[in-house]
This record gives sequence, structure tokens and C-alpha cells, in this order.
Amino acid sequence: MHNLENLETALRAWREILGPDNVLTDNATRETAQTATFATTQNVPAIIRPSNSTEVQECVKIANQYKTPIFPVSKGKNWGYGSQVPVQNGNIIMELGRMNRILDYNEKLAYVTVEPGVTQRQLFEFLREKNSNLFMSVTGGPPDASLVGNALERGIGKGPYGDKFSHVCGLEVILPTGECVHTGFERFADAKAAKVNRWGVGPYLDGLFSQSNLGIVTQMTMWLLPSPNYVQTFFYSLNDDSRLEELIDTLRYLKLVGLIRGTFVIANDHRILSFDQQYPWGEADGKTPLSSHLMHKLRKKLGGAVWFGEGALYSVNRKQGKIERQLIKQALKKTVNKLTFFDAKTARIIPIFYPIYKWITGIDLEDDSLDILYHKNPHRGIPMEQSIAMTYWKKRSPVPSDMDPDRDGCGLIWCVPAIPFEGQQVRKALKIIEDTAKIYQFDVNVGLNCVTERCLDITVSIVYDRDIAGEDERAMAYHDLMLQKLNEAGYIPYRLGIHSMNSLPPVRDDYGKLLSELKKTLDPNDILAPGRYDFRNEWL
Amino acid sequence: MHNLENLETALRAWREILGPDNVLTDNATRETAQTATFATTQNVPAIIRPSNSTEVQECVKIANQYKTPIFPVSKGKNWGYGSQVPVQNGNIIMELGRMNRILDYNEKLAYVTVEPGVTQRQLFEFLREKNSNLFMSVTGGPPDASLVGNALERGIGKGPYGDKFSHVCGLEVILPTGECVHTGFERFADAKAAKVNRWGVGPYLDGLFSQSNLGIVTQMTMWLLPSPNYVQTFFYSLNDDSRLEELIDTLRYLKLVGLIRGTFVIANDHRILSFDQQYPWGEADGKTPLSSHLMHKLRKKLGGAVWFGEGALYSVNRKQGKIERQLIKQALKKTVNKLTFFDAKTARIIPIFYPIYKWITGIDLEDDSLDILYHKNPHRGIPMEQSIAMTYWKKRSPVPSDMDPDRDGCGLIWCVPAIPFEGQQVRKALKIIEDTAKIYQFDVNVGLNCVTERCLDITVSIVYDRDIAGEDERAMAYHDLMLQKLNEAGYIPYRLGIHSMNSLPPVRDDYGKLLSELKKTLDPNDILAPGRYDFRNEWL
Repeated sequence: MHNLENLETALRAWREILGPDNVLTDNATRETAQTATFATTQNVPAIIRPSNSTEVQECVKIANQYKTPIFPVSKGKNWGYGSQVPVQNGNIIMELGRMNRILDYNEKLAYVTVEPGVTQRQLFEFLREKNSNLFMSVTGGPPDASLVGNALERGIGKGPYGDKFSHVCGLEVILPTGECVHTGFERFADAKAAKVNRWGVGPYLDGLFSQSNLGIVTQMTMWLLPSPNYVQTFFYSLNDDSRLEELIDTLRYLKLVGLIRGTFVIANDHRILSFDQQYPWGEADGKTPLSSHLMHKLRKKLGGAVWFGEGALYSVNRKQGKIERQLIKQALKKTVNKLTFFDAKTARIIPIFYPIYKWITGIDLEDDSLDILYHKNPHRGIPMEQSIAMTYWKKRSPVPSDMDPDRDGCGLIWCVPAIPFEGQQVRKALKIIEDTAKIYQFDVNVGLNCVTERCLDITVSIVYDRDIAGEDERAMAYHDLMLQKLNEAGYIPYRLGIHSMNSLPPVRDDYGKLLSELKKTLDPNDILAPGRYDFRNEWL
Repeated sequence: MHNLENLETALRAWREILGPDNVLTDNATRETAQTATFATTQNVPAIIRPSNSTEVQECVKIANQYKTPIFPVSKGKNWGYGSQVPVQNGNIIMELGRMNRILDYNEKLAYVTVEPGVTQRQLFEFLREKNSNLFMSVTGGPPDASLVGNALERGIGKGPYGDKFSHVCGLEVILPTGECVHTGFERFADAKAAKVNRWGVGPYLDGLFSQSNLGIVTQMTMWLLPSPNYVQTFFYSLNDDSRLEELIDTLRYLKLVGLIRGTFVIANDHRILSFDQQYPWGEADGKTPLSSHLMHKLRKKLGGAVWFGEGALYSVNRKQGKIERQLIKQALKKTVNKLTFFDAKTARIIPIFYPIYKWITGIDLEDDSLDILYHKNPHRGIPMEQSIAMTYWKKRSPVPSDMDPDRDGCGLIWCVPAIPFEGQQVRKALKIIEDTAKIYQFDVNVGLNCVTERCLDITVSIVYDRDIAGEDERAMAYHDLMLQKLNEAGYIPYRLGIHSMNSLPPVRDDYGKLLSELKKTLDPNDILAPGRYDFRNEWL
């Protein structure tokens, strides 16, 4: 805990640099900043908002001078992982939303260089304004989430560049002591390959600044892809859960041979339901989890399916796309139900589904929500809000048009184990997840995020209503036991929230010593996001 | 310079651990170790050869105790970059060739885990013995080169996994102070995703140990791919140099749309000649470089071409392969000459070319050397020796069957600038290379190694005969001026040899401070490969 006098002096110094409007200490702002989608106790004394790298440097120097820890966030939309709340109590939040310039854009070499405040939506609109043929990999997260923040968290997007951190380079980083470094070839004033090459020459340092507290990234180059001439999206369902292993193994094959170039998701029935509607409190008689009887009924609306897969094919022309489609059909048809492909031509018939949809569900599709099947499909680089609706699943109030889970008491906690891309392994991990959910009477809401040829991440979302007493505790207890059991089985999470930074199993080597040495060297005053991915429980 | 008494004591301690046979100080061994493919002056007092990680740890501790710097090499085949010669004088070489176990192999998830002594050839033969359907990305380097060494140098292979360092994970590393760490999920005893996921959780540290002197990698998992059902290789030439820009831009398009998944090379006429024959000293009247008249004549043998491209297509079946072939033909045909594809069927007619080849060149193909067009093509994961023959280009003695450029006085120096994947940029860099070659009367021997969608590396090979007085100096002068001019133009090398560690342009930020802090923290006694990619010229 830092001392109050220091804090006051630091605040004065920050105000001098940033102006009083950008050093916020009013209760309303502080309370918002202290609110996540699960219970937190961290007190945030202030929020500071630098507008450029130089100001970030100055702010960091002041933090060192007065030993006041700061916690940088880009846009603070880290929902389910802690939003903008710091890991430790008493940190000042450094919010980088004002740094929202798109600094470079190259249509031929297909990249942009962005500051941390640039959002998915902003880049999407920028590309549209430029009449660009490029598209980005979008995540299931909010359109107003930061591109830099997500990439540094090693987030997962859709499409060929879905493994976000594999497709960025040339970071500008403010170190915890205020120095500025550039990674890769960016450290040279005029290196021509700075924005097109990840490694540069010498040690590759970008990794040090992902999932870490070793620097503040103030610039990043992000690679895009040209929109192909012929895009297809596809969807399938699986009615028989016992065929999931077979499906997973087939999909691994399709990834390994390069037929499916992109990242995609297989979502379970609860996940899909929670995108589309809220918990049927009435039908469920106020009880959770959904009874198997009620789930069976709701599943009918989903065509009886327990799993839903999707994907996209990016082809040079129709002819190539057709053969790729045939190959995928051939590989999947034995296993899945209702495999459907859309291209620009067939997507024209999507509106035909509207009345059918209404007839089945009773829901009137006034807007163009089925457009997500093709025209506004995220595999085409179009940010989507649909998945945020999930956070309102257990709320008894309707989903508002301006969704804000933090504000609205939506409970959301992620648990995201990394699993080898093998049916049997996925099954084992799912069993653990299901068994733990049963104990705490939670619905099992999972997506299998198939990122690379060999590894997928199960994204378990624990969704609940924070306004109901006791739910915060019950949800976190579920999370903690599930994570512990997954860890014991060797299914370690690929990403952590502020709630789980110290929940990893013990290491078998000198990793803790190495990490503590790195931290102590780069951040001798421990002022940068202490506790964030630094595993100090392992330090010697 | 370390003191002699310390060295003697250290040698005794190492002998105790490794046995006298594995601490070599005899003159013959030392002289071999001191020999590269260019002039060096470094004295190597001894070579130590640990056989496992624990021995590496013990050896490193002794190095610290007696302040005797060690320079780890895997197999020491870093030809053209320094072979096994340390950057600084007086280092002990730690040779890891005895650590040659293949520790894990998974056909389904397509990976192997190897020690640093495992070579390309060894893995190739291992996979054949196992009747594996997997293939690796091979480099143009020697079959007896280390897989680990090459990946850590961020070497370039052929095929979809040609960007080597993007397709490895789970390093075991002995730190300069003797501790052992594992990267990614490998730090946990039983993490299931340890060999299938690069990032793990927390900071990604692998990059710290590539192109660096911050640790000794004693284990690495390397990803492989299943051999596709239908493989095609293809070749083309370019007779009109002025169309190179157009070719490069078309190839970038083919990479960006995912049609060409792999890494490939466009080689110039000198490069191709040097694979196939030695310098025509007789016809050239003993003069260098090749006169344009003679080059014109020799080029006839190459069908009049100045550039030669190659590549491969990996398809699920013949039908898919056919359409991909059509698309590539369509894209390239306006620009290139003689675009030819081979598949298993058409490759059967390769022997038909033997007499034609003899008729054109007068060379009798007694062996199966044209098999390299398909059956033994490196794009299929088959290590090749052909490119080593290049190092004998300027020798007046014939190429021996057991090629060893270090031993045979073959001069080879690499200069490898990274260039954005754009025709105009490639042209600018080539102009610099050509202009400098002219000054020093060298032939321009280049390959354009097209690694990723946005960046290619020009690999300039300076090939000469070390047995001719003055050539070492002339070659290095050519290298140095070329590198300087490339740097000035912003074309920075992607990889350095021991001859060029301090040849980079000045940095524009605090990178030197960061790197010196990392080095001093991890290696307080400066005993690990001092000068290797640590840019101490930039240290404060």
C-alpha cells in the first residue's frame, strides 16, 4: 500500500502534465473503474489519461518517483477477465483510450499501425472509408475493444489471422522506468521491413510485452488480409454429442492440410441459446440450471443440436471455392448434421428464412440479424455485438440497446483451458467442466475455439446475475474449483483474468526465478501493474 | 581475456564432469574449430562436449566460477556465418552434437521433440523408419546441420513451415547462470498442450533465446506437417530481368490469398550455375567476375534465363491441385517463361530429360540428379546437398563427394537483408548489391527467399577461394561495403554472422539499454557467447 502523501504529490504532478481533465478522482468515475463483471474489492484512487507516448513516459517517471503503481488499460473492455480493474488494490489506472490514431496504412502490403485506443469498430470504419479491400481478424469481444489490448492478451479472432499475436509486429513500448524501445526492425530509424517482419534481428522481444507487466505498448503494427474474390461461410450442427470426438479429429485434419485456413468456433447449445435469448426464468420456475426436460424443448428451436460449428473459406474464385466446399463436405458429412454453405449468391436467399424463423421461434426478425450468416459474418472482418448479449443471459431485465455488462450487473467469468486438438482430450476436459458445473448448479456454456492446427482453447463462460445476492460467490467458487481440476488434469488456461493470476499449478523449474529477475530489472520500483501475469507466488 | 590459471582449473573441472574424451584441447581439433568459411583470428582454447542437460548446467556453473566464456554450438554448421567459431577471442566452444536424441514423436498432432544434436538427415531417416506420413521443413543448409540451431537462428526452410521459428515451441533452456527453465506450457509438469501451443500463459519467452546469448537451448518441439495426398512442384524462369518487379508483386498476391502456402526461392543465374558447376576458369581466362559475353553463353545452358523460381502446391486431391495449378498459371503466365509443374504422374517422365540435358550441357547425368525436380524435392521435406556444392564454385579442385567447406578452404560469406515483398523495393536493394559487387569484381549470386506474405530476404552469397592470397580480404571488403550501403538504405539483415555482429546501424531508442540490462541480469559474469547478437556497441 503506497502512502497517501505520495499519491497526492503524484496526482499533482500528473495533472501538470495531462491537465486536470485527464486525472480523474471523482467517485462516479472511480466506481465505474472499480467495477468488473464479477466481485472485486480493489480500490482505484484515480484514473490518468495520457494522449501520447511522451505523456506516457512522463507519467511512468512520476509513478516511479512517488512509488505509485499504475495499471495500464487500452479501452478497459476486458470483460470476464476483470474489465479495467487492476490486479492489486490501490493501483492508478492509466487509460490509453485517447491514443486512438491509425498511424500507418498500407493497402499493398496489407497492414495498419495503430495506437492502443484504436478499436475494432474504428479500424473497420477506417477501412471502409478508404475503400480498402483489406479485412481484419475480429474477435467475439465488443466492437469498442482495443486492437492492441486484445493482441497483447493473445486474444483469439476469426479468420486466417485469428491467432492475433502471430500477426502483429513492430511494437513501441514504454518500459516501466520510462525508457522507450521499439521491437523488431522498428528500432532502426528507417528500416524498410519494420512493419512487415516480426523478428527483426537479434532477440525477439515482442513476447516479453504480451500477457505481462513489463512495458506499456503505445504502438503496434497489425497485419490484415485482402478480401478474397470468393468467400463462403458455413455452418453445421451435431445432434449426437457422442460424435464430438470424431468431429474434432476431422477438423484437426482439415486444419493440418490447410483446407480450413482460419480460426473458428464450435459452440454448445447453451452458448448459442445465450446469444439469442435470455434465461427462460418463467418456464424454468425460477430454477437453475436448465432442467434436461426444458433444455430438450429449447434445443428443438436449435434443430435438436447440441453443438454448432461454423467457418469460412477464402478462395480466389468460385471454381476453387467449389472444390474446397466439396472437400469439406466430404470430410464432415458422415459426422455432422445440416452442413450449409453460403456464398454471395446463396446469401441472397437468407431473408427467406425470416418467416420460417418466426414460425419456429415466434421471434420477429425486424432487423437484419440473419445477415450474420454471411453479409455481416465476423469471418469477413465485421465486428459483432451478438456475443455480448450472452452476458445478459441470466438478467431478468431485457437486454438494452447500449449493452454494458459492467454497468448492468451482468456476471461473467471466463475459464479458458488450452487443449490439444484431439477428440479424446477435449472430451476429458469437458467432463471436468460439466462435473464441476453440476456441483454449483450452473449451465455449461462453452465454445471450442479452434485456433491453430494442434491446439484449441475451450472458452467456458460462467454467466450469472450479479444483482442476486450470493451469486458472485457461487460463480467464483465454480470457477475456482473448475480451474483447479483442469489444472490438475494438465489443461492449463491460455489466458488469465485478475481473479486467477495466482491460480496456476506449481512450475517444475526455475521459471519463477527468471520471471522475478526480469521484473526486478525492468521495474525496480514495482510500479507497473504488479501481480499481472508475473506469477509472484513462484518468486524466490 | 580470461586468465590462464582459471582456464586450466576450469578445464580440470569440466574433465571431471564430462570425462577427458569430451574436453578437447589438441591442436588439430582446435584448429578445425577455429576455421570458418572466411578469415577469423579467434583462438579457441578448448572444445567441451556435454551429453545431457544436467551436464550443460554443470559446465555452465564452472564457466561462471572461473569466468571462462563458453560459446555453444549445436552442430557447428553455420557456414557463411562463422561455422562454429565464437564471436570473441578465447571462448571455449560447447559443442552439443552428443545430445542427439529424438525425445518425443506424435504422428497425430504432427510434432517431434529434439535435442540440439539432432540433424535434418537424422529426423528425415527417423520419420522414414517410423513409416511416418509427416514431413519437415528442410533448409538449403547441410543435411547434417542441427534443427535446433537453425530454428534459433530463425533460419528459412522450404514449405508451409519455412519460417522456422514460427513453428517451434516448448524450449528447455539452461540460463547463463545454470538454472533451467522451460518455455510455454512446458514449465508445468504435465501440461497437455505443452507441445502444441507456442504461447503458454504469461510472457512469451522463446524469443529471448533466438538470435541471442541469453540461454542454451537443450530441447525444442518442432512442428511437422502430414504429406498431402497430392503434391506438385513447379518451376519457372524469367528471361527478361526488367519483369522482376512484376513477378515479385504477383507472388506477393499469391502468398496473400493463400494460394502458395510455402516458402520458396527465386534464384538468379549465378546462383543456379554455382549449384551445377564450378567457375569456368578456363573459358574466363582466369578472370573474375564472369564477363557478360561468357555469362551470356553460360546462360544458354539455362535456357537464357536470368531468374529461376520454384515452389510447391500441397493439395488434398488431384482435383484441388489442378485448379490451384490453373490459378497459379493464370497469375504467372504473362510474366514468366517456361512454367512447368510436376506431380507424381508427370514426374515419371523426368528421366526423359536426361539425354536432352546431356545434349544441351554435355553433362552426363549418371545419378538421379534430376529427381530433385520432384521425387527428392526439398519442398517435400527431403534434405539436399546440392546447395553446398555452391561453396566450391571458385575452387580449382573438383567438388569432393564428402563436401566440407571449412576444411576445403571454400570462401563463403552471407549478407541477408530483409526486404518488403514489393518489386520496387527488391530492385532498389539489388541495385545496391550489384553496384558493390562491381567495385570488388564479384559475381552477383543471390536468392530471393520468399518467407512470408509481406517480407522476403535477399540471400547474397559471396563465394570465393580462400586458398588464393588476398581473397579473404577482398571478399570481406565487398561484404562490409554492401552491408553498410544496404543498412543506409534501410535494408537491414535478418540474420548476422560472427563477422557482422556490430555492423548494424545505430538505433533510435533505448534498445541498447534494455538489451544490456537483460544480458547483465541473466549473465552477470558475461560467460555466455559474449558479443553474439547482444549489440554491445549500443550499450550505455
